[in-house]
Amino acid sequence: MTAANDMHLQEVIDTIEPIDPDWIEKARRHTAQLLMPTRALGRLHDISERLCGIGRTLNPAVGRKAVLVMAGDHGVVDKGVSAYPQEVTVGMVQTFVAGGAGINAIARLVGAEVRVVDMGVKGDIVIEDPEKRRLLRTVKIGRGTRDFTEGPAMSRHDAESAVMAGFVQASELVGEGVEVLGTGDMGIGNTTPSAAIGAVITGADLDTMVGPGTGVDAEGLARKKEVVARGIRVNTPDRNDGLDVLAKVGGFEIGGIAGVILAAAFHRRPVVVDGFISTAGALVACALCPAARDYLFAGHRSEEPGHAAMLRHLGLDPILNLGMRLGEGTGGALAMNILEAAARVFGEVMTFEQAGVPGKE
Amino acid sequence: MTAANDMHLQEVIDTIEPIDPDWIEKARRHTAQLLMPTRALGRLHDISERLCGIGRTLNPAVGRKAVLVMAGDHGVVDKGVSAYPQEVTVGMVQTFVAGGAGINAIARLVGAEVRVVDMGVKGDIVIEDPEKRRLLRTVKIGRGTRDFTEGPAMSRHDAESAVMAGFVQASELVGEGVEVLGTGDMGIGNTTPSAAIGAVITGADLDTMVGPGTGVDAEGLARKKEVVARGIRVNTPDRNDGLDVLAKVGGFEIGGIAGVILAAAFHRRPVVVDGFISTAGALVACALCPAARDYLFAGHRSEEPGHAAMLRHLGLDPILNLGMRLGEGTGGALAMNILEAAARVFGEVMTFEQAGVPGKE
Repeated sequence: MTAANDMHLQEVIDTIEPIDPDWIEKARRHTAQLLMPTRALGRLHDISERLCGIGRTLNPAVGRKAVLVMAGDHGVVDKGVSAYPQEVTVGMVQTFVAGGAGINAIARLVGAEVRVVDMGVKGDIVIEDPEKRRLLRTVKIGRGTRDFTEGPAMSRHDAESAVMAGFVQASELVGEGVEVLGTGDMGIGNTTPSAAIGAVITGADLDTMVGPGTGVDAEGLARKKEVVARGIRVNTPDRNDGLDVLAKVGGFEIGGIAGVILAAAFHRRPVVVDGFISTAGALVACALCPAARDYLFAGHRSEEPGHAAMLRHLGLDPILNLGMRLGEGTGGALAMNILEAAARVFGEVMTFEQAGVPGKE
Repeated sequence: MTAANDMHLQEVIDTIEPIDPDWIEKARRHTAQLLMPTRALGRLHDISERLCGIGRTLNPAVGRKAVLVMAGDHGVVDKGVSAYPQEVTVGMVQTFVAGGAGINAIARLVGAEVRVVDMGVKGDIVIEDPEKRRLLRTVKIGRGTRDFTEGPAMSRHDAESAVMAGFVQASELVGEGVEVLGTGDMGIGNTTPSAAIGAVITGADLDTMVGPGTGVDAEGLARKKEVVARGIRVNTPDRNDGLDVLAKVGGFEIGGIAGVILAAAFHRRPVVVDGFISTAGALVACALCPAARDYLFAGHRSEEPGHAAMLRHLGLDPILNLGMRLGEGTGGALAMNILEAAARVFGEVMTFEQAGVPGKE
């Protein structure tokens, strides 16, 4: 197989296949024998059977986990679309590496490695500790995107580079033995491009798709809606061309997330997407390659109102619904535990026959 | 303090206090400083703050976990209310001890000990392996309850003994350092007494409260409804007297679960209840001692239709909703992970000040 960093996007897309229904059927037959009333663990069975279909196996394993937190900045923040200043992106990336953010706490709980990728942060990330520096990968396709109300956020070439950088980062983790990937994001202002991507690809209106993000007030929300509307009007992205949408109204980290998802599908590994921004990345990935959808799990339903419409478009039913809206990969990481529960139930629970327990009368 | 096994139920009830709102307020102030938009992890904050109120601490810890699986049989199965034969109770208890059931797989994932208590199984539990035998505690208040369509399921004295046996078992675990308890159940036919308890205490009608359990057909469901109706008519349980309800239409394992919940409240530990049967136990516990409610978390919403009405009556919002309906403590055990995530976020995430990241503009 060609090394991941020598591949072209089209080769990746052409190689990805839908999951195998025969393996799902075999898995369902195993579930039917487990020592419990028929499918009594509900969605855990659906999850474990899809894991079997993804891996073409009856021994689905999701013990080795990694979350890729993709970071980038956004020219459009100049238009006042975020409640936080742009420097926060640098500060948060440094905190991810230091282990002090929400994603770190949750990743430690679920046993997931956190890898942070500077896909295009405006400022310089400073990591004093050389030991910690290896947790950060620097891609930096640009120092923030351009303001998409005045033209495309990035070139088509940069959009493809962003996707392929995410693909390479995730492929490296798979090469190290990672069995399940999670996507995360950091980038002040990034609910704005995500809403634009969501509106273009799902066709939902801006009242549905543009929400408060980290917490803009009513005036800020109205401004944000106008900014997204202008971005779409000025650039006229083609909803059937994922790279066009990403280039015109997207972000570097969102492209990276799309690449992580394509890598999961390419290597036949499950990927748990987080909230609004990660799901915008999933919309791009599935616009590029519809078969990638089979490898996706929606970790949770975010409080950001447009998220539900994105999930509906992808046909994904979120695993958790805890009113979370942080991003960073937190919702996806937390749901990895549910995937692991599903895999363990599938693999560890005895059958009626093994236990010698009588079945239904 | 009096040793747990020398106490009387009334002393336990009289000692339990509601949780302390001052600690919750202190915890909320800490949450407000965490490096994330205001309360961006939604219910995780509500959970961690309640853990602080329960433990009167700003260092809530739920790392050491145990699930008590209470088992018992039911005279009312003679009326054909279950899809499975009564011997399954013995077989499942033996499987819990052997480690091969759903609860074992999930408990291993979340790092919870499983302790099984024979509260009143009809047959004898045979555990060949002496090493494994210590995982089972034998209380055996009776060999199954009496058929409650013909009079009370048990005496009031036995009902009190069941509750106090659960209290003693859980107190022992707390004494060993367990920080969070989960409740589980096993007992062929036990959705029938649970539905009766639910109907009496919540006041919901039988169409709401009586469901398919492990999977009776339409005819079985009609029969089950008639059995519950008759049990309530024959015994006229007093909804304001938890022991009366338990004695007349309950079960030994349901009494044990109520005792586990009272123990959690007594020792100021959180307790995660599982599904329909565990929540019937919670209804009994809260009828005996309304303050115990503050210590309860609803692990999940079961597929058994009456569960939602029980949770509403208790004012509990379930943490997970995964279409599960197995019992054994599986839903509660799985949700323990979410409690741990909440505690870790509370304790491990840096404040804006510690991270040196600027706040909202």
